[in-house]
Amino acid sequence: MDMKTLSLAEIEELSLRALIAAGTSQDNARALAAATAATEADGIASHGLAYIPIYCEHVQCGKVDGHAKPTVELPKPGVVTVDAASGFAHPSIDLGFERLIPLAREQGVAALAIRNSYNCGVLGYHTYRLAAAGLLGIGFTNAPASIAPSGGAKPVVGTNPFSVAAPGPEGEPTILIDQSASTIAKSEVMKHAREGKPIPEGWALDAQGNPTTDPDVGLKGSMAPSGGYKGVGIALLTELMAAAMTGATLGINASPFSGTVGGPPRTGQFFLAIDPGATSGGGFGERLAALAEAIHVQDGAHLPGDGRQGKRAEARKNGVAVNVATLQKIEAIFA
Amino acid sequence: MDMKTLSLAEIEELSLRALIAAGTSQDNARALAAATAATEADGIASHGLAYIPIYCEHVQCGKVDGHAKPTVELPKPGVVTVDAASGFAHPSIDLGFERLIPLAREQGVAALAIRNSYNCGVLGYHTYRLAAAGLLGIGFTNAPASIAPSGGAKPVVGTNPFSVAAPGPEGEPTILIDQSASTIAKSEVMKHAREGKPIPEGWALDAQGNPTTDPDVGLKGSMAPSGGYKGVGIALLTELMAAAMTGATLGINASPFSGTVGGPPRTGQFFLAIDPGATSGGGFGERLAALAEAIHVQDGAHLPGDGRQGKRAEARKNGVAVNVATLQKIEAIFA
Repeated sequence: MDMKTLSLAEIEELSLRALIAAGTSQDNARALAAATAATEADGIASHGLAYIPIYCEHVQCGKVDGHAKPTVELPKPGVVTVDAASGFAHPSIDLGFERLIPLAREQGVAALAIRNSYNCGVLGYHTYRLAAAGLLGIGFTNAPASIAPSGGAKPVVGTNPFSVAAPGPEGEPTILIDQSASTIAKSEVMKHAREGKPIPEGWALDAQGNPTTDPDVGLKGSMAPSGGYKGVGIALLTELMAAAMTGATLGINASPFSGTVGGPPRTGQFFLAIDPGATSGGGFGERLAALAEAIHVQDGAHLPGDGRQGKRAEARKNGVAVNVATLQKIEAIFA
Repeated sequence: MDMKTLSLAEIEELSLRALIAAGTSQDNARALAAATAATEADGIASHGLAYIPIYCEHVQCGKVDGHAKPTVELPKPGVVTVDAASGFAHPSIDLGFERLIPLAREQGVAALAIRNSYNCGVLGYHTYRLAAAGLLGIGFTNAPASIAPSGGAKPVVGTNPFSVAAPGPEGEPTILIDQSASTIAKSEVMKHAREGKPIPEGWALDAQGNPTTDPDVGLKGSMAPSGGYKGVGIALLTELMAAAMTGATLGINASPFSGTVGGPPRTGQFFLAIDPGATSGGGFGERLAALAEAIHVQDGAHLPGDGRQGKRAEARKNGVAVNVATLQKIEAIFA
């Protein structure tokens, strides 16, 4: 694969130009471009620049309103709600966080519910920012249904990730968990289908709920939940938070995140921000450090988020190597 | 097994008498006795009356201070903290919920952090009560370390359950999730060890992190996380919330929940209560009902909590059959 090294500023600028050329407002594009650079910095290439052509296509086909103006409300002293108005999730999250962060510091805990939204990219990007503000951040985001309930075979909930970020001593989270409810990402099954390769048993189930190694059969069936019924529990927790609790569209009713048909998915996000100093009486930092140390002293053991943190530091210094074919696709959008 | 049917009031009364006879104050015993009856009603016999002799022993050996007086504080407008003072978790949760429930209705979201506490029994008993008050309840409780980190072999976090209860139309939660981070409860491995039976592969790991079918080897090693590294993620989330965020004792430092040595474990609980009407703009009930229906229309499919709900209705009408040997053990405590 032909690669070229770009600085994070260059990645952000490229993303911005393509999104605007495709019909996204400056404000909306800016939020997404910053997230794209941060995602490349974290080493998650699958959700970085590679997504820009998809985002642009979704603006052009009307799956996302590039000029949406999200609106914010504060219905109760600890609650912020944002209506994303069928626009990108990122500007709505930015708008919500502007209120959520000071509110959480003041109240000790605050919630942000976002409805009529879209795929928010890497969920941990958003909880990271809460941790960088000194708060414990928890996030949920729902997706079109692809996991079946226990005892059933028809999908009712998405691969629905949750994320938690615990603030460390110098603005970097000490722990950043960001995991979906399925054994593997649906995009991996789609990739195997495109390449005509079988998938390992345990990744997906057929339409009757039986294991399959055929990716096409799996895509017509359901994604296997991680750890069986406990993975279904995680997906349901996320569906409750990101859809039922926000007034967003349930996974059973949402249009697909991929392709151009079906109009806006109008799914949701839910964030909680909590002040560790208030809840722990001051003992948070010491305990978090002791927990992290108990893991880091073990040879080969690691905390969720360790990998991203190392890559981030490196990318800030030396930039990121990106796929030239992806770059050409993006440059063609604003050429 | 010789069984006898008791009413829920009889179960509560028996529990109360035994706990008081063992040295528990009336107030503290009352909270625990009510939970014991409710747990038997839910059909979770392992955590019902069977636990009363253990609780009594723990009061007698000093692992729990039966006369502890928990203290409550409100450090921020949305945060309640309770110091359980090495007493039972249940009276501290009761004390905290008295403040948490009205606060969540007023603020839209509120948090309860409990430190210096103890095993809280069935976590879903507590989140159930938040849902019965019309709130979405989320709970976390930590335990002595028994799960190793990804890439490591030495336990750093407990089997750490979380629970979420979503309020239904008539005071009964529509969904009640209550699941631990391990493939199976540690008590099951202990039971196999007592009975000299091998355990299935996938339940526990030896001290080097390899799979084992010997329960004694597993108990000296670690419990297998559900779904591999994603189960570790759930255990870490719970450890963050129930210990680091409350100022309670981390699982790596906590004394065992079983046996009589080590003094009080002083572990913790964390609860969030959220007003679905505030966050969803009123669309919560309709979405929850649609999600539940999408599951219940599938032959054989069920929602977490369905089983407990059916048993609860039956137990309220006809009582619960309990093990006579357990009854005799309990009666001996106050005879």
